[in-house]
Amino acid sequence: MQMSLPCVKQPDVITCKAAVAWEAGKPLVIEEVNVNPPQAMEIRIKVVCTSLCRSDITAWESQAIFPRIFGHEATGFGLEVIRELFFRIVESVGQGVTEFTEGDHVLTVFIGECGKCRQCTSVSSFSEYTVVHSGCAVKISSVVPLEKVCLLSCGVAAGLGAAWNVADISNGSSVVIFGLGTVGLSVAQGAKLRGASQIIGVDTNPEKGENAKAFGITAFINPHDSKDPIQQVIKNLTDGGADYSFECIGDTGMVTTALQACCDGWGLTVTLGVPKVKPEVTAHYGIFLTGRTLKGSLFGGWKPKSDLPSLVDMYTKKEIQVDEYITHNLPFEDVNKAFNLMREGKCLRCVIHMAK
Amino acid sequence: MQMSLPCVKQPDVITCKAAVAWEAGKPLVIEEVNVNPPQAMEIRIKVVCTSLCRSDITAWESQAIFPRIFGHEATGFGLEVIRELFFRIVESVGQGVTEFTEGDHVLTVFIGECGKCRQCTSVSSFSEYTVVHSGCAVKISSVVPLEKVCLLSCGVAAGLGAAWNVADISNGSSVVIFGLGTVGLSVAQGAKLRGASQIIGVDTNPEKGENAKAFGITAFINPHDSKDPIQQVIKNLTDGGADYSFECIGDTGMVTTALQACCDGWGLTVTLGVPKVKPEVTAHYGIFLTGRTLKGSLFGGWKPKSDLPSLVDMYTKKEIQVDEYITHNLPFEDVNKAFNLMREGKCLRCVIHMAK
Repeated sequence: MQMSLPCVKQPDVITCKAAVAWEAGKPLVIEEVNVNPPQAMEIRIKVVCTSLCRSDITAWESQAIFPRIFGHEATGFGLEVIRELFFRIVESVGQGVTEFTEGDHVLTVFIGECGKCRQCTSVSSFSEYTVVHSGCAVKISSVVPLEKVCLLSCGVAAGLGAAWNVADISNGSSVVIFGLGTVGLSVAQGAKLRGASQIIGVDTNPEKGENAKAFGITAFINPHDSKDPIQQVIKNLTDGGADYSFECIGDTGMVTTALQACCDGWGLTVTLGVPKVKPEVTAHYGIFLTGRTLKGSLFGGWKPKSDLPSLVDMYTKKEIQVDEYITHNLPFEDVNKAFNLMREGKCLRCVIHMAK
Repeated sequence: MQMSLPCVKQPDVITCKAAVAWEAGKPLVIEEVNVNPPQAMEIRIKVVCTSLCRSDITAWESQAIFPRIFGHEATGFGLEVIRELFFRIVESVGQGVTEFTEGDHVLTVFIGECGKCRQCTSVSSFSEYTVVHSGCAVKISSVVPLEKVCLLSCGVAAGLGAAWNVADISNGSSVVIFGLGTVGLSVAQGAKLRGASQIIGVDTNPEKGENAKAFGITAFINPHDSKDPIQQVIKNLTDGGADYSFECIGDTGMVTTALQACCDGWGLTVTLGVPKVKPEVTAHYGIFLTGRTLKGSLFGGWKPKSDLPSLVDMYTKKEIQVDEYITHNLPFEDVNKAFNLMREGKCLRCVIHMAK
């Protein structure tokens, strides 16, 4: 059956500024780029705010394909580019798009509702305009603060979802979180809201311990401060192992440690990180056979179009913290400063504001 | 508080026959051994039937501590010795035992209800008499056929439990099982009873395919018959990957394959096997991050004392198959024949009958 699609006036190519990476780990260069009109089922968006995620740094430092505007080169598992974006305005829509109209406020997500197809994983960020598949945009209310809720496009939502949807943390349980960036601290927030009685945060950066309590961490451990292996320290603190552990660093070796830090019988380890080196997770079979589970969490198990609006709603009702993760606000021309802050572990979230 | 324990006449040391392994992979030698009286909270049992499990072969071929009567050397994760036993008669009980009396019919299990303590994992089998902690024996009705329900002490229960308790297989789902021994075929039975629509069995032994349908297998694949990798063959058969996969071989490399044979988003892999070589499970992190879960299954998640009586009950009501797994019945003196049949993949379960 041939479907009749609404007739939409085809927009033109746009020239705008974008931050182009020409080489791994080298400063991005802001230059003029062309942005094509949206094709069938795509929308073109004017970017308002975009936030920087740790996995951008991973991609920037390790990807081999340059030049690129981070976000276009989503390959493999669709994970290499994970980015928090807020695009304020739908600038134009392609053929067949009925869900969005010009002027809509949208959140974009790096996975669409289907989460599989190549189109769903194609998202661009560091550009004044960009084109995404309509499946990767979520319409939201035009009254929520754009410069805050962009964090719900990835990091904060990923952490909350890992705690709620993937691990399904129960009241009174013990939780250990490896890596206290935005994702790890969002797991902590999720665990706290579920009533976990012990929420242990682990990070080698002592500065990470300072504000961790505000997000629910009940004890902070720096592995460098202990002679015992960290998994043993946690076993001692949790009567034999935590009920839940979360790997939020992006270090596959820590996945093994996280499994070992869990208890026999029902210990559940959730891995959220994107590793920079050694992509293989390795663990002794006995760790599983004694009753542990290893589960991956991609965007916290949320279905973006179905679930993100209710997370935005929770934010407006002050049921979840979001603002607290924003440590820096920077103009687009300082995009490299954001990259350096993130690389040095000196920020949680830097929100980058595009020129109006 | 000092508890007053019932006064029990202390029994003597017993001399009886046992099959002793003196060297890895070498025939067992039936010889006279002493069996000590039961100590506090232990019971001494007269063995009636005992069935041979694949993991006995693994232990026999690879363990370094000899001489031994298989079953005593439960070490490490308490998994090295997994054995199906049926001991008909409680011969004597130690101080503090109130749950059992002489003459009780019991099933023994390699994990007690607590599943952790050293005592719970200490079980002996190839001996006319043995002593176990009372936590590792389950009292059952004296009218069920001893030579059949011994299989519920490990293999059949482990497979059914992996399908029901650990994976919680849902109606209409697709399942793939690697390794069609008793455990794998019990997973198949469990999947069939849960209404799985596709139950794919994988084994390199073509003989395993012959009787597999009787246990619920809907399609048999021998990886040697295909040019494509087995995970790709399964993806093609299951529209992108099975909902559930089970590793029942004891090959950590196959755990990775089993993960790859599962679908994105919610694919669940359960590992039940005890590997002979390479104890590390290795898999690309992306396999987890795209939504897969790896779960270990120890005795199918059953709590022996609480759950085994109801499994025995299901057997008597003909709700589950057990007899069908018994391919051989052998007298105790032919215990080495059973080991050879198992090693060569020429049996499902050999039940070994002790002299009366």
